[in-house]
Amino acid sequence: MGRGDRPIGVFDSGIGGLTVVRALRRLLPAESIVYLGDTARVPYGNKSHETIERYALQAGAILQRHEPKLIVVACNTASAHGLQALQAASPCPVIGVIEPGAEAASRAKGPVGILGTRATIQSGAYEAAIRQHCPEREIHSLACPLLVSLAEEGWEDDPVTESVCRRYLNQLPFDVRTVVLGCTHYPILLPSLARVRPGTTWIDSGEVTAQAVEAMLRNALGFRLEAGAAPLRILLTDASSRLREVGEHFLGEVLGSVELVDL
Amino acid sequence: MGRGDRPIGVFDSGIGGLTVVRALRRLLPAESIVYLGDTARVPYGNKSHETIERYALQAGAILQRHEPKLIVVACNTASAHGLQALQAASPCPVIGVIEPGAEAASRAKGPVGILGTRATIQSGAYEAAIRQHCPEREIHSLACPLLVSLAEEGWEDDPVTESVCRRYLNQLPFDVRTVVLGCTHYPILLPSLARVRPGTTWIDSGEVTAQAVEAMLRNALGFRLEAGAAPLRILLTDASSRLREVGEHFLGEVLGSVELVDL
Repeated sequence: MGRGDRPIGVFDSGIGGLTVVRALRRLLPAESIVYLGDTARVPYGNKSHETIERYALQAGAILQRHEPKLIVVACNTASAHGLQALQAASPCPVIGVIEPGAEAASRAKGPVGILGTRATIQSGAYEAAIRQHCPEREIHSLACPLLVSLAEEGWEDDPVTESVCRRYLNQLPFDVRTVVLGCTHYPILLPSLARVRPGTTWIDSGEVTAQAVEAMLRNALGFRLEAGAAPLRILLTDASSRLREVGEHFLGEVLGSVELVDL
Repeated sequence: MGRGDRPIGVFDSGIGGLTVVRALRRLLPAESIVYLGDTARVPYGNKSHETIERYALQAGAILQRHEPKLIVVACNTASAHGLQALQAASPCPVIGVIEPGAEAASRAKGPVGILGTRATIQSGAYEAAIRQHCPEREIHSLACPLLVSLAEEGWEDDPVTESVCRRYLNQLPFDVRTVVLGCTHYPILLPSLARVRPGTTWIDSGEVTAQAVEAMLRNALGFRLEAGAAPLRILLTDASSRLREVGEHFLGEVLGSVELVDL
């Protein structure tokens, strides 16, 4: 098996990263994907740097058993706190969702808003990445911890969700016209977000990460050339009955069999 | 040191159980308490039976190092899924929050409502416990997963929280006048809950559990007789800066030093 035929490993704190898998499968339908969701310990969004880093390293070790050509950290919180350690420990390249999102935000004009979990915002990772491209850019970061629960509850297009989005988004100055959805759950809430703040350009970190992965495969790692359907393996550390329902909603397709792994 | 002087061990999935500690310290101000919150893996509310049971056993092993005279499982989800295994594995008595809550509900007249996390409601533990006392009682159970996030966000007395509470509580028949707050976070939301459904008797599972603990100490295990202030040790599996703030709000007093433990 050539390197290009090896799978793309995707790591997420739970099932939110399936929105990134959805973007990957749309852009790269022939690629084989192994997804590891740490559903037994989700969410990472309110946890400390040390704990998140430790969890990311454990997940990386599991994914290495599948000899991935590349690992995508499909969770903003884990990208903010665990990416560097995982890159140092992995024999293959590791890409997070923050750098692609920050790069896309840098290309926009004017001040930028960042929405994320408390841990992502506290890390300052988006600001640091955007300032690499545009040192002078005005950046407004906002922790929105309730949005993950609302997305998982399936209330994505709902008056309550709209009130919560309004409460959060009203904290951004009026001239912020570009907002990064710095959490994999947030694109699910786009109907409510867009109604509260029309005329905004929303950057979906999953979409831009899929584009970055495509470029890495094209430039160096190679595409999968094997014939036949592209396998998608789902490994989870906990499987409740509810997960399948929410997971299929995030993935946008039927979830095949799920394998339980121990972390 | 006599058995009565040994501490009460309290186990919770996170910091919600501090509302139970608050009730214990109000009722039993001389008792020494060792609290273990599994903040690295919180919340348990959407996890599977097997995972929650495993986590409860690990927590029990840590608490045993402190030779407690009694362990209180101060988390409804862990009580619903981990109590039996923990009782079987522990050399000391173990009490959960569900049996005291169910007993209090049984003493009320008419149909009973139960609010809880998805895992607590799916377990059917409250129904089973209430039917032990009143086999014919009409019971309406309702999973309210968003309420934990709202309590942790500190939006306990807020129009958004009131809308969410209304959405959930409107699913209970009008003649339900007794409602069990089957999650340690929910008493924090009482202002909003009470406005939505005035005239309801709310059963706080933490309050009634503290009363059950008092009876166990009086009848068999003994009270602490040592002089001096009652120690409260807080062990957590993860400590983010945010935890102290929310924890003090739940506990109703200043949180002393926090010790990190590995689970």
